[in-house]
Order: sequence, then C-alpha cells, then structure tokens
Amino acid sequence: MDTKTALECLKAYVRCASVSADPLYKQGLAAARDYVATLLQDAGLVVELVPTPLNAIVMAQRLGNPSWPHVLAYGHYDVQPVDPLALWLSDPFEPEVRSGRLYGRGTTDQKGPFITMLAGLMSALKAGKLALNLTVIVEGEEEIGSPSFEGFLKTHAQQLAEAHCVILSDTVSPSEDQIAIATGLRGLVALECLFQGPAQDVHSGFYGGAVVNPLHALMAVGASLHDAQGRVALEGFYEAVRAPQDWERQELARYPMTDTQLQQAAGVSSLAPCFEPFRSAQEALRFGPTLEFNGLGGGYQGPGSKTIIPAQAQAKITCRVVPDQDPASIQQAVAAALKARCPKGVHCSVTLGQSAPAYRVCPPHKTPGNTDTSVLAKAFAFADDAISNNFGRAPCFLPEGGSIPIIAAIQASTGLDAVMIGLALPQDNMHGPNESYSLAVMQRGIAMYRELFTRLGRV
Amino acid sequence: MDTKTALECLKAYVRCASVSADPLYKQGLAAARDYVATLLQDAGLVVELVPTPLNAIVMAQRLGNPSWPHVLAYGHYDVQPVDPLALWLSDPFEPEVRSGRLYGRGTTDQKGPFITMLAGLMSALKAGKLALNLTVIVEGEEEIGSPSFEGFLKTHAQQLAEAHCVILSDTVSPSEDQIAIATGLRGLVALECLFQGPAQDVHSGFYGGAVVNPLHALMAVGASLHDAQGRVALEGFYEAVRAPQDWERQELARYPMTDTQLQQAAGVSSLAPCFEPFRSAQEALRFGPTLEFNGLGGGYQGPGSKTIIPAQAQAKITCRVVPDQDPASIQQAVAAALKARCPKGVHCSVTLGQSAPAYRVCPPHKTPGNTDTSVLAKAFAFADDAISNNFGRAPCFLPEGGSIPIIAAIQASTGLDAVMIGLALPQDNMHGPNESYSLAVMQRGIAMYRELFTRLGRV
Repeated sequence: MDTKTALECLKAYVRCASVSADPLYKQGLAAARDYVATLLQDAGLVVELVPTPLNAIVMAQRLGNPSWPHVLAYGHYDVQPVDPLALWLSDPFEPEVRSGRLYGRGTTDQKGPFITMLAGLMSALKAGKLALNLTVIVEGEEEIGSPSFEGFLKTHAQQLAEAHCVILSDTVSPSEDQIAIATGLRGLVALECLFQGPAQDVHSGFYGGAVVNPLHALMAVGASLHDAQGRVALEGFYEAVRAPQDWERQELARYPMTDTQLQQAAGVSSLAPCFEPFRSAQEALRFGPTLEFNGLGGGYQGPGSKTIIPAQAQAKITCRVVPDQDPASIQQAVAAALKARCPKGVHCSVTLGQSAPAYRVCPPHKTPGNTDTSVLAKAFAFADDAISNNFGRAPCFLPEGGSIPIIAAIQASTGLDAVMIGLALPQDNMHGPNESYSLAVMQRGIAMYRELFTRLGRV
Repeated sequence: MDTKTALECLKAYVRCASVSADPLYKQGLAAARDYVATLLQDAGLVVELVPTPLNAIVMAQRLGNPSWPHVLAYGHYDVQPVDPLALWLSDPFEPEVRSGRLYGRGTTDQKGPFITMLAGLMSALKAGKLALNLTVIVEGEEEIGSPSFEGFLKTHAQQLAEAHCVILSDTVSPSEDQIAIATGLRGLVALECLFQGPAQDVHSGFYGGAVVNPLHALMAVGASLHDAQGRVALEGFYEAVRAPQDWERQELARYPMTDTQLQQAAGVSSLAPCFEPFRSAQEALRFGPTLEFNGLGGGYQGPGSKTIIPAQAQAKITCRVVPDQDPASIQQAVAAALKARCPKGVHCSVTLGQSAPAYRVCPPHKTPGNTDTSVLAKAFAFADDAISNNFGRAPCFLPEGGSIPIIAAIQASTGLDAVMIGLALPQDNMHGPNESYSLAVMQRGIAMYRELFTRLGRV
C-alpha cells in the first residue's frame, strides 16, 4: 500500500468516531472495528472478532510455517473524547490535511501509526513471499484503560505466546528526523481519596475556629506527601529506584530535547528540582517514579465567595512507578499515609484504582558482545537499521515516562517483549484539540515498516 | 398587630420571591420591596424608596419631637437562593405551617424576625402615644454583601446619625427559651488565588517528575498557613487578639450549647484543638480569628482518572477577623504569604475580595457601677428585661462568630451602636433547604418588641 492509498484509508478510519469513553459513540466504535477488520482481511489475514464485555477485540492471523518468525502486532481502534470541541479548527471526525499534517481525533493516537504499520506490512506482503507468521490484535478499550484486556489474555495467552515478540507504534518520538524506540514504560497506580469533615457544609461564621476544615486536612496531608525538594515523602518509596545505565545515559545525551526545551514545551518558568540518582529532568521523568495529584476539589468553586466550611474535599492521585517497584505496595503505602496523616475531626477514605507495573526491555543488540539471535534481537536490530535508513538518523533507545499497562501484562502472561517504535510527535497534540499526524512521518514510517517486515520475513 | 395577623403578613411577604443573587427574581424583589413599604406606610411611617444601582432601599420615618429617643431599625427584604430545590419538602415561596413552624425561603432570614419586630412596634404604636422617633431601613442586597450600602451611607450618614441606636434581629439564638443578644460580630476579608503551572494541562507520563504540579504548590502553600495545632501561621496574626473578659466568660458559662453539643451539631468526630487565649471551641469561634479555605479546585474532577499535571489550581479563602485586627492588613498579609511561599515553577496570583472589620459593643448596663443613661444603655437594659419577661429567661450577651458588615459600617459613619436580638435558631436551617421560623419565637418576639418599644417611648 502506497502513502496515498494509506492516507485515504486513514481518513476513512478517522471518520469512524470511536470514542470509547462515551456510550454515545457505540456506532462509531463498531464502524472503526469493522473497518480495521476489513483492512486486515484484505491484507490476507484471517480475521476473528473476539467479544468482550465492552468492545470486541479484532484478532487477525497469518500462519505459515511454524518455524518462521512470528510477530504480534498491537493497535487500538478507539480514540479519546473530543472536548473541548470549540478549540478544534476542523471537525475532529472529518479529517483534513493542512500544511503536511492530517488533522482529526485519533490521527496520531493511534489510527495513523497503526495504518502506517499496516501499509508497510501490506507492501512487504505484496512484494513477495514473506516467511513471517503474524498475529494482529486491535482493541477498542485502550483509552479507557483496557478493562477487558486481562480477560482476553487469560483465554488467549497460550495462543499469543506462540509469537516471538510484540511490535507496536503507540509511543512518542522527539521529531520527524529523530525516532525513539521505547525500551520501557512507567507503571501506573491510581487512588482517590475523600476527606469528610462536617456532615454538611456549615457556616464558617458559626463554626469557624471550632471545626476542622476538610480542605485544610487535605492540603496538610497532600503537602506531606512530598518534601521541600519535591521527593515523595513515603518511607522506602525510592528503594527500588536505580539510576540510568551508562548506555542509557549515552542515548539520552543524543536525544534532541534538552531540559530547557522541555521547560519551554511545558510553558513553565522553571522545572522541578532534580535529585539523586537523576542528573536531569529528562532522566527523572523516564527513570524516576512520581506521586502526582491529578485533580482536587472541595467546597465552593463558583463565582464570588461563599462563607462555608465544606463537608468534603476530594483528590485524585496517580503514581508512575518504575521497574522493581511493586505497584500494589506503592498503592497501599499511599493509601495508608493518607489515612494515617489525616488529622482528628476529619475522616479520610481511600478508593483504590488501577495498578499496573512498569515495563523495561534491554535491546539485545545494544549489549556489547551480543550473540542473541532471537527474533526479538533481530526485530530490534532490523528496526534500528530500518529507522536509520528511512528517517536518516539512528533511533534513540530510551524508556518513556508514559504507561501502556497492556505491554507489561502481555509480558507477564506470555513472556513476549515489545519493540515500541514511536511515530507520534510532541506537536501532534495527542488527547488534545486539533490532534494531527505528520504525513512525513507516515511516508517514512511506511517505508521503514516495509523494510522491517521484509527483513524479518526473509528466508 | 397580633400574631395571627403578623403570620398572614409574613406569609404574603415570603411569597415575594426576592432572591437577590439571581437576576431572574427582579419581579419578586420589587414585590417584597413594595410589600414592606406598604406595611411601614400602614404603620404610619413616611416611606421613601432610595434608589441604588441594584435594589432600592426602603426608608421609613416617624419623626416627632427631636428630644424623643430615636431608634434606627434595620432589616433586609432579599433572600438566599433556593437550590438545592429538590431537598425542599414544600415550595420555598409558598409558605406552609408544619408543627409550629413556618417553612419557606426567608422565613427566618430575615423576613420573619423583621415582621416580628414590626408587629411589636405596631402594637406599641397602636396602644397609645409613643414618644419615639423612628427610622426604618430595609435593604434588598444583604444576601449579596450589601454592595450599595456604602453609597447609601455616604449620602445618608448625617440623617441616620440623628438616631441614638440601631435595633435589629438578624442574628442567632440557641433556643426558643434562650435568646442571645449579639455584642459583636467578626469581620470578614476574602481572597481568591490562582496557581498557574504549565501553559495547559500536560500528560503526567511525559512531564511527571520534571514539571512542578500546581496542585502540589497549592497544597504546600495552603498547608503552610496553619501550624499543626491549627493556629494561623502568619506573623503577627494573633497580636491584636484578646481573651474574653470575665463578664463575657460568665455569659458563655450559661450559654446552653456546650462544645460537645457544637460537635454533634456539626456532625464531626472531634473539634479543632483549642489554643491560648481560648479555653473552648465556643470561645474560639466568637472571640478568635480564622483563616478558612472555602473552596478548592484544580485538574480533573470527573469520574474515573485522567493522568494529567493540570495547568491551574484555585482556592477561595476568607478570614474572620476580630476587633483591633485591621482587615486590610490581614488581607495583604495572606496575599503576600501566598505569593512568597509559592514554589518556583508555579506562579501564584491573588485577587482581593471584600474586607470588613469586626464589630463589638459593650452593653452599658452590664458594666458594674453603670450610670449611663443614653438611649443605647436604655435599649440594652429594656431589651434585657423584655426578653426575660417574654421568653422566661434573661438573654445571653455574647459576640457572634458570623459577620454583618453593615453594622460596623453604620458605626463607623454615624457612631451608632446596635442592639442585635437573635430570633433565628440553629434548627431554622438559614440559607439551606426547608428554612423555617418558629411560631413560638414569633409570638414571644412580638410581645418582647412591643414591650421594648413601649418602654423606650414612655414619656
């Protein structure tokens, strides 16, 4: 499939409004699912829809000689909600090309990168005999935390384990010229807490000075979770954390985004203080764990003032965890601290959310004296070459700060590691308004994937 | 006017839906204004509508011999919004009597107490010659902070200053049997602050660990404003604060609400710690200042989780101030602390809201060896007697923790002190759903006011 055809395919795919968070988009989800299923069928794969409690998983296979390398390719057909809609310059579900980019919801997360991979694969298949077994899974619940994926793994782990490695494009690269292969992902644990003060909002004149304000309790407890340097103030939180290895620091040194550029991209006057064992913000966000409040609320938030001591205050917390940190222990430690540090007169209750471990893979070909001839080792080495050949520069191999919990889940249940080739760029505005996908990345990406699959399937 | 007639008047008055916070209620405000104006006219007073930028002030006078005592009576014809409407058992603007109480918005704040005062006054006027000059002002913006009242005072201070004291019923008493005369009110200063982090919400995976979270900044700064004992942690904040005087502690000792009852009323498992110079929560909330967060918000507050570092966090703060604390200085000190304590990488901006001083009056007849024969001294002494005679128990004389900024404003511009007779009870649910007014309080209150005005006007 050439770039022009792939672009038309991508446009048709984006037109399927497949927002998984909103029940109103059921039809769009079904359309996206069917569209991707048809594409895979047209590519010659045997397609099956695996039902789940929510949105069926598309599973497609090309099984030839069992001795061939077997690649498990992953994608997701669902997208993020579109609001704030008013900020979009064009209809999020009517894709539009402007200045070398395709605009629309899902263009870069993850429909564009998936179509890029598929177009490369189809070109490779079309060009000649490919000694390559393929399993492609495309889920429809990634943007809501893949709630059905664990169940799917339970029933399909054995089948998936026949593959040799996972390949996907759902991570980020710094620029059109510099692709990154993600060698890791941070894990994620989530919690919500509720601080209950008086039985209902009470008058701050009649009770102020006598009743403990749950907003004060929340702020005191919340503030206590970090020290003045910004370190998480929980005993043992950093015990399992390790510094980047030398080769990782070398990769980071040639990564074309400095801390200053990171600061500018975030639009802040200065970055968080850096602490041992990390030497820069870039190191901290890829190799270090965090405890982050994602939302806070309580009391009166409307216009003007309201003189109350509110009944309740709430907070949403997530931690990004790194390898060797146990997410369940971290989650318990945060919950215990919230409760233990809550002052008298206020009651703190905690609801535990998701809990997913970090993922880390060491590309075998980066190890000095490597003699690994596994499909995984080849996939990494071929991807390295194919990216160098088609994007003009060797990829950076670095763990990413984000989380894709299913990658660690696949690893845990099948033993398969993943080659994660970033085709989204920081300026693509993933999850935001005016999401777009670079057509240059698409063109180079198709050629890169064609080369990667061709070499993997070379007899 | 007897209780039955007064009740019918009150019902008609409550039917005027006079919510000042909501522009949709313009008609109800005009109806309430006209209704109260007509009542005052029927009582024989000369009524004038003083226009303001919002809702006209009703001003009514009875001027006889300049040597007579002259009382300035205050009330307000506007009411609080009704939401949450679903919690009302009857229409808030269709008053209904159930179990000895009149239910409806404004019944206890402040239409009921005002009609009670007016009915007592009309009875006294009807009974015979009353050597009493009267000025009655009824405003329509009390529930939105009396924004036009300062302008009214500028043009009318000289005229109002001809009175000798203010009398009103807009404060709270502990029970139907125990009336409180408020000898003070706390002042109020308001601020809002905005903590700005990244230019927009950013992905907590890609930025977490590198960018300072504005929610963390808000919690750290907010928590720093109190110490572990709950004292406000601002230098000099307590400098002007003084302990209750002995006579005030004696009044408090017979006040029929213990700290334990206060705790139960608030529905909390324990009260805030008590600190010097206060010996109880009841002392702290009447004689001590506070710094209270009334609302907090930032980041994602919807269902589920959203892995962002939010761009902004906001908070609403009010301080209750006590006599000799300068509200403007307190407001500046809080604003300065918020800014100074904000960590690098986050920007804190502060918006100043209202600023009103505390009010305190010492009833002359409570001073040992008192020889004060002023109208104010008489009004306090007569109120003391009239309450004892009609409610069966002598009133408590205690400052209240709430704020009525216009009382200090009248004092500042005219020199007049106020006799504040509480006719609202804790169970009246002022500002809440199912607001009600005790008919027993109404009946006793009419008789009490009749006696008070009769004695003040006795030649």
